[in-house]
Amino acid sequence: MRKAISSISNPLIKETYDLHSKKYRTERSAFIVEGTRCVEEALASGWEIENIFYDESVNSARTRETAEKAEKEGVAVFAVTPEVMKKLSDTETPQGILATVRRSSVDLTGFTDREDGLILIVDEIRDPGNLGTIIRTADAAGITAVVLLAGCADLYAPKTVRATMGSLFHLPLVVNQDKEELITWCRKNDWQIVASSLSGADSIYEFAQPKRCALILGNEASGVSSPLLAAADHKVFVPMRGTAESLNVAVAAGIILFEFLRAGLVTKNKGVL
Amino acid sequence: MRKAISSISNPLIKETYDLHSKKYRTERSAFIVEGTRCVEEALASGWEIENIFYDESVNSARTRETAEKAEKEGVAVFAVTPEVMKKLSDTETPQGILATVRRSSVDLTGFTDREDGLILIVDEIRDPGNLGTIIRTADAAGITAVVLLAGCADLYAPKTVRATMGSLFHLPLVVNQDKEELITWCRKNDWQIVASSLSGADSIYEFAQPKRCALILGNEASGVSSPLLAAADHKVFVPMRGTAESLNVAVAAGIILFEFLRAGLVTKNKGVL
Repeated sequence: MRKAISSISNPLIKETYDLHSKKYRTERSAFIVEGTRCVEEALASGWEIENIFYDESVNSARTRETAEKAEKEGVAVFAVTPEVMKKLSDTETPQGILATVRRSSVDLTGFTDREDGLILIVDEIRDPGNLGTIIRTADAAGITAVVLLAGCADLYAPKTVRATMGSLFHLPLVVNQDKEELITWCRKNDWQIVASSLSGADSIYEFAQPKRCALILGNEASGVSSPLLAAADHKVFVPMRGTAESLNVAVAAGIILFEFLRAGLVTKNKGVL
Repeated sequence: MRKAISSISNPLIKETYDLHSKKYRTERSAFIVEGTRCVEEALASGWEIENIFYDESVNSARTRETAEKAEKEGVAVFAVTPEVMKKLSDTETPQGILATVRRSSVDLTGFTDREDGLILIVDEIRDPGNLGTIIRTADAAGITAVVLLAGCADLYAPKTVRATMGSLFHLPLVVNQDKEELITWCRKNDWQIVASSLSGADSIYEFAQPKRCALILGNEASGVSSPLLAAADHKVFVPMRGTAESLNVAVAAGIILFEFLRAGLVTKNKGVL
């Protein structure tokens, strides 16, 4: 029998609601994952799920099955009222299910001995939607990992998590990485630093991707920050034909990562993707 | 001497504020453009500007110059208090300048006789941020035009306008286009309909872009709608390597448009972009 919670003053609901604040997410080392698809991905990922809250009045077979699957796996599932779900949800029309998940991340050492790979470094990306979309795009391109430098939007904010569409559970993520340490690690282990830049840069279509490639994308307004630009082994840009001054950073991520993927495969397979 | 407005109850401020609602934007055939960059682009575009509201307490030379340039061109510029600016602005930290602009759009007939071109059709894109980012990306790729089918997010909503970063003033936009009329027009004038689709589609890397190409991107959740899929001459997809189920639609727009641009130029110039 599923435990029911019908009051927004219930201590567990209050405690879960607190995860909307970054301070509390950090203290508790947990975050909220919302929506059927993202909860499914969290379950499948092996990340530790604390609790699931499920509004039984929502008429979706897929959502019900997700809740049942979680219970079979020993996760605590609470039946909540629409009012309680509304309180916990960050969206206007909640899908009826959300989970609290323990954080889990990796550090750079796991990539030290790789012979090849493409790591995307994000530098001071401030918009949670952009950050989440970049992680989704990196996952779709099948790259090695994403490194979030200190100063980025919070990976665990509800908007970021939602924009990843579950991809944060799919690929290794390094969070809150110190810039200087990253530069030192790249130099020591022969990962080439490739910074996106509008000046003094090579076209991505003429650029031969290094075997161990650490691609850096920068802030929405100001681009890659000076210490990283100075440390870059190469600079690349996306040639544009129209009159827009720049591309959205998540769109630029997509164009560059998929061009690297295409060009890499073209070279490897002597054919096209 | 600039006219000053210090009360949020001023009739012009009330009337301008009403442009936050779609109903009123449609009735008045006008919309709000916010921020220094977007107002500059509006001024440079030749679109008709009704009024500019400028918070003189904002300490930015570029913003002041934009206001002065507008006055020289005969646009009514009102000096407003931070409180009034806050009322009119859709953002948390207003840049201190916004304009009301008269709508202006084109219809398909302008493209009927073109020998070649790439028109992007957006079908039921619901998120204003995605819609604006797609227009910005289309501008950066230098394509012929963007057609917004009926059922898309409102082009003139503040969030859409902001996400275009001024690009809505750079390229021809057809708005509220009827789907059946579009299909008829494409057939009659030999524009090939190319729909993005996950099934029965060719890789974008193996696809030869037709001379007159009408590329359709669909809804965030459900993709291109059935009547358009059925009418498509070709279907294309972006091959992915990772485990993400799909790409964000604005990112997909970037990857496809820039691949078409690259492939087109490679063919034309026998070289790379």
